[in-house]
Amino acid sequence: MENTTGKVITCKAAVVWGPGEPFVMEQVQVDPPQKLEVRIKILFTSICHTDLSAWKGENEAQRAFPRILGHEAAGIVESVGEDVRDMKEGDHVIPIFNGECGDCICCKHQKTNSCNNFGVNPMKTVMNSDGKTRFSIITKDGGYKKPIYHFLNTSTFSQYTVLDSACVVKIDSEAPLKKMTLLSCGVSTGVGAAWNIANVQPGSTVAIFGLGAVGLAVAEGSRAREASKIIGVDINPNKFIKGQAMGITDFINPSDPGKPLHERIREITEGGVDYSFECIGNSDILREAFLSTHEGWGFTVVLGIHATPKMLPLHPMELFNGRGIIGSVFGGFKGKSQLPRFAKECMRGVVDLDEFITHELPFEKINDAFQLLVEGQSLRCVLHL
Amino acid sequence: MENTTGKVITCKAAVVWGPGEPFVMEQVQVDPPQKLEVRIKILFTSICHTDLSAWKGENEAQRAFPRILGHEAAGIVESVGEDVRDMKEGDHVIPIFNGECGDCICCKHQKTNSCNNFGVNPMKTVMNSDGKTRFSIITKDGGYKKPIYHFLNTSTFSQYTVLDSACVVKIDSEAPLKKMTLLSCGVSTGVGAAWNIANVQPGSTVAIFGLGAVGLAVAEGSRAREASKIIGVDINPNKFIKGQAMGITDFINPSDPGKPLHERIREITEGGVDYSFECIGNSDILREAFLSTHEGWGFTVVLGIHATPKMLPLHPMELFNGRGIIGSVFGGFKGKSQLPRFAKECMRGVVDLDEFITHELPFEKINDAFQLLVEGQSLRCVLHL
Repeated sequence: MENTTGKVITCKAAVVWGPGEPFVMEQVQVDPPQKLEVRIKILFTSICHTDLSAWKGENEAQRAFPRILGHEAAGIVESVGEDVRDMKEGDHVIPIFNGECGDCICCKHQKTNSCNNFGVNPMKTVMNSDGKTRFSIITKDGGYKKPIYHFLNTSTFSQYTVLDSACVVKIDSEAPLKKMTLLSCGVSTGVGAAWNIANVQPGSTVAIFGLGAVGLAVAEGSRAREASKIIGVDINPNKFIKGQAMGITDFINPSDPGKPLHERIREITEGGVDYSFECIGNSDILREAFLSTHEGWGFTVVLGIHATPKMLPLHPMELFNGRGIIGSVFGGFKGKSQLPRFAKECMRGVVDLDEFITHELPFEKINDAFQLLVEGQSLRCVLHL
Repeated sequence: MENTTGKVITCKAAVVWGPGEPFVMEQVQVDPPQKLEVRIKILFTSICHTDLSAWKGENEAQRAFPRILGHEAAGIVESVGEDVRDMKEGDHVIPIFNGECGDCICCKHQKTNSCNNFGVNPMKTVMNSDGKTRFSIITKDGGYKKPIYHFLNTSTFSQYTVLDSACVVKIDSEAPLKKMTLLSCGVSTGVGAAWNIANVQPGSTVAIFGLGAVGLAVAEGSRAREASKIIGVDINPNKFIKGQAMGITDFINPSDPGKPLHERIREITEGGVDYSFECIGNSDILREAFLSTHEGWGFTVVLGIHATPKMLPLHPMELFNGRGIIGSVFGGFKGKSQLPRFAKECMRGVVDLDEFITHELPFEKINDAFQLLVEGQSLRCVLHL
């Protein structure tokens, strides 16, 4: 194989040219990694709702086109830039949209997985070091080299991508790369919320609102922690069948007539669950999730993206009933420090990844893959690059 | 001394006959304690804002008159009812408005100091066992025996009061009773919020909004935990002088012109404090308190009573910056289990109680004592019964 180190690579990428426009397979140019950057050959990538939202351009302020989306993937290091010491060509890696520089005040603090330099920032479109993109495209009319924007520190809908090394995690070379794709976002977010944020205990009770991949990963994480009752809430009855494989013990469909959700949940759990997880991004559901927990010690973890300006639907005095609430980004995992171990736990079967991949398609079928997610048919559709 | 066990005791009590009406010193009859109840001779009582609010009848639904208010006190057991095994005549005790029955699901749970049977309930006016009062008054016209309502499980503005044993804590007989009065509410609430809820660590930074007795107790608790910076926020500059004795290192007066409070605090703490405490009950201040903490791990404890219908002034996505928020009742102390040890720590000087008692008056001057609190002149005025 030709040595591409230090050279521009021309490869296929799925480019979005405008909000909601179909992905176009383009030949893009990928620059070599600069200092503390890594260039990765992406082997697998999947699609998450955050990609969907950016594709539609739901938040006008975050629109930037042309752009290469995608943040859940797995691949192999093609080459590394200057001063990258923790990775080398050929290493198996997964990108993380919530980086870990290791140097900032947050990275050095035990209690947070925020990173001041490479945190989640949907407005960011360029690399930190020089404010430029590493992607470009030669336009057909006259050969003008047009930059293509990055997305969420990752941009994985491309055969090659360049990331800051703070956003690349080296994992065991024996780990099955296709499944490891899931650790890049959804599964880590859900399992981590159960393990790191809520710290679900054996014998405890859990309610999960929204059974997409993240919600089901919360279930899988809770099952692994031996929760005694895991209540799944979703309006799609098909999710109920799927959920049983991830440990869901009880199902509630909000569309069924009856009492408010929190009353139904309190009735079947002697006063409320120990932990609830809101994985939808709906303000009314968030309130139900909060009220579903037991007074005194109930704990609600917010994972859903709340895109409307609606404020928290809670009164300050409701915090006095001993119920806590907190948000969770990337399941509280410090990516570079903690994901390698999590990957090994998945390999050992502590967490079962098999059920999350419901579809597989070639990269070129990315528009079909998006459609599957839009229609709620897929949990994760993995694209083969 | 005459043995009064099993007999009705006639004594002085400060009775409120209507919202905001002056306290009237009345001769009231105090029934003997029933099963699992205790009758206490109150030696000292002080006044907290919750008494003030109930006296004014600010919340119409909570109005009940005639009533004996008061919940911060210390005294001696006069007699105990059937089945009371953990206390006997002569024991030194403090009443707790947030009881601990020891039997309910909350009392048995490690993470909460809620109690399903004797929790905080400002609507409650009678004893649990028979739904009746233990206080009555013989009216001058014809001798009709009129019941007088209880308040917050305690009703300490009386020379004798009857409480459920779940709401009485036996403390070391060597403990100075006058100071122990403070442990009945304000000091335990503040110190406990710093110790049990926030778990303030050595070298950490703290901001306290509102420097009443509770806020200053948070400061004292944070000082005892060796916080490196304790920022006090209050519009009354006199509180600043007082606060230095309790460990306040920096003062901010919101009335001074300048940037928003959270910006001022972030500037002097490298991005925000580790812990903030809202001790006012003001929605705008609550938001400032939340934003004053450091992204990633900042933690806000709400202690103020928010009496308006205003909802939490936070957007769900703001929870994703890694800032947590929780309410705190009675500082998270399980009263009967944990206060005896806290009392000993106070005796050893871990927490200094001296500065909290700013005034002392005879019981008969209770109306003057209320006025001192209304005018913001006193932290705690202890009444001698």
